[in-house]
Amino acid sequence: MTRLSNHANIAERINAFLLEKLNQLAVNDEKLLEAMRYGLLIGGKRMRPYLAYITGDMLAANRQDIDAVAAALECIHAYSLLHDDLPAMDDDDLRRGQPTCHKAFDEATAILAGDSLQTLAFDILANHEFSPEIKPKQIKLIQQLVNASGYQGMCGGQALDLAATDKAISVTQLQHLHSLKTGALLEASVLMAAECSSKTTESDKAALSQYAQLVGLAYQVQDDIIDITSTEEQLGKPAGSDLEANKSTYPALLGLQGAQEKAQQLYQQALQALSTLPYNSQSLAEFATFIVKRSH
Amino acid sequence: MTRLSNHANIAERINAFLLEKLNQLAVNDEKLLEAMRYGLLIGGKRMRPYLAYITGDMLAANRQDIDAVAAALECIHAYSLLHDDLPAMDDDDLRRGQPTCHKAFDEATAILAGDSLQTLAFDILANHEFSPEIKPKQIKLIQQLVNASGYQGMCGGQALDLAATDKAISVTQLQHLHSLKTGALLEASVLMAAECSSKTTESDKAALSQYAQLVGLAYQVQDDIIDITSTEEQLGKPAGSDLEANKSTYPALLGLQGAQEKAQQLYQQALQALSTLPYNSQSLAEFATFIVKRSH
Repeated sequence: MTRLSNHANIAERINAFLLEKLNQLAVNDEKLLEAMRYGLLIGGKRMRPYLAYITGDMLAANRQDIDAVAAALECIHAYSLLHDDLPAMDDDDLRRGQPTCHKAFDEATAILAGDSLQTLAFDILANHEFSPEIKPKQIKLIQQLVNASGYQGMCGGQALDLAATDKAISVTQLQHLHSLKTGALLEASVLMAAECSSKTTESDKAALSQYAQLVGLAYQVQDDIIDITSTEEQLGKPAGSDLEANKSTYPALLGLQGAQEKAQQLYQQALQALSTLPYNSQSLAEFATFIVKRSH
Repeated sequence: MTRLSNHANIAERINAFLLEKLNQLAVNDEKLLEAMRYGLLIGGKRMRPYLAYITGDMLAANRQDIDAVAAALECIHAYSLLHDDLPAMDDDDLRRGQPTCHKAFDEATAILAGDSLQTLAFDILANHEFSPEIKPKQIKLIQQLVNASGYQGMCGGQALDLAATDKAISVTQLQHLHSLKTGALLEASVLMAAECSSKTTESDKAALSQYAQLVGLAYQVQDDIIDITSTEEQLGKPAGSDLEANKSTYPALLGLQGAQEKAQQLYQQALQALSTLPYNSQSLAEFATFIVKRSH
């Protein structure tokens, strides 16, 4: 992800912020805290924080406010990975080229670390010292994270994903599933960041929301393509794992070429959504390009 | 729990409120929603909601405000049971005389239902229409739930509990473990309810906090006693399960008589804490009596 402007810089900032949050927790159980740190800080592209910061920068939001938004989003994302990797769910042994949390520790600890990271997300939003003009929106930010991550968002999407395994589903169903499973949190990344700026209009929010949903889908289509065209070494986990798990994917439903065309189409639509914004949205455009161009 | 004043009444009220919250969720995945309903509404003594309502009533809080507090507490409690019962944790097949959630559904669904119930707790607090005078404390209520339920509270306690299995620990360590695992959420039940009243003073809160911690410990001591003195039929789950799981318990550390004396002592201290309150605390006293007198 080094080709993205400021990516290293942003990743460093959010990692330092997250580490500080973990270090502020009183030590009760070393192993659980270690597992939370492992799940939150080992690897990861920090895509959601990145989106939040570049959206916030575009809208002249205060980076100290974005810190909390980005950290809460990353905690939710990290907890979902710990739980999705569990034997009862996707049963993955590797994540980002490292043993998954339940392999490095044990299942009980991975479950509890996930639970605690979810709480930490709300902890960060509820305890952050937001700028005086953003403070009145603190509850709204929590509402946005709730909507994106719970039954009506990410968790619901993961349930649909599990239900779709070993089953034939339509492209529409697959799209709905991904819009909840990954789209909702990506959308929250731009919308929560937009909430931290006082100049964002309703029409800006609508365009950003559309952009994020389209990029989210493009990401998923590209992810499915990469799963069948990359090596284990490139992926940091076994290639072809979707096929092996008998999951519905875009290449399976549309063919490889159809999936590639789909990704291109979503990409163009995402750029179009950005074009309605009265700001310099170059970083967001660059992010969309990165999503569909990446090969691993 | 029928010997407690108003218990049936309060249980009916909170169950109706929780059902309404579940019914308001858009249907994404039927099975997941069903599992959330199963985990949240099948059985249960509603001890935390009960404590919240009687504390709120004592302090002349608005019951419409307590509804949200009680429901959020119960969602956290319910999610913790779904996860604690999992094979990787306590591996329990029965809960309240019924199959545990992962037995009635499957493990993946029980994990996701727990995750979604945790989010629902924050959903309820963040979206509730609190009375105008309590609304400014909405963030504080979320902070209190975070502290009681995450790494620094309930989750940390469960981790300590798992770490203590098959190990000799001291009474002090056992007490610390339970003060986090069950005490923190009971304490939040009275403190969050107290937050919903404008007449509560800091010294009231200190007394209530002490009361809740003592009752929480008494509950745990009594629970350990019941585990070795009751039948499976009375418990709704196998008797002697602590012994079988090789967990540290008060009877194991203090002997049965020592544990019974400990429960009595905690009970007396809890009543003493109440005696400093300038309100009619009869319901809270009655609750403490119920906790140490119950035989199943």
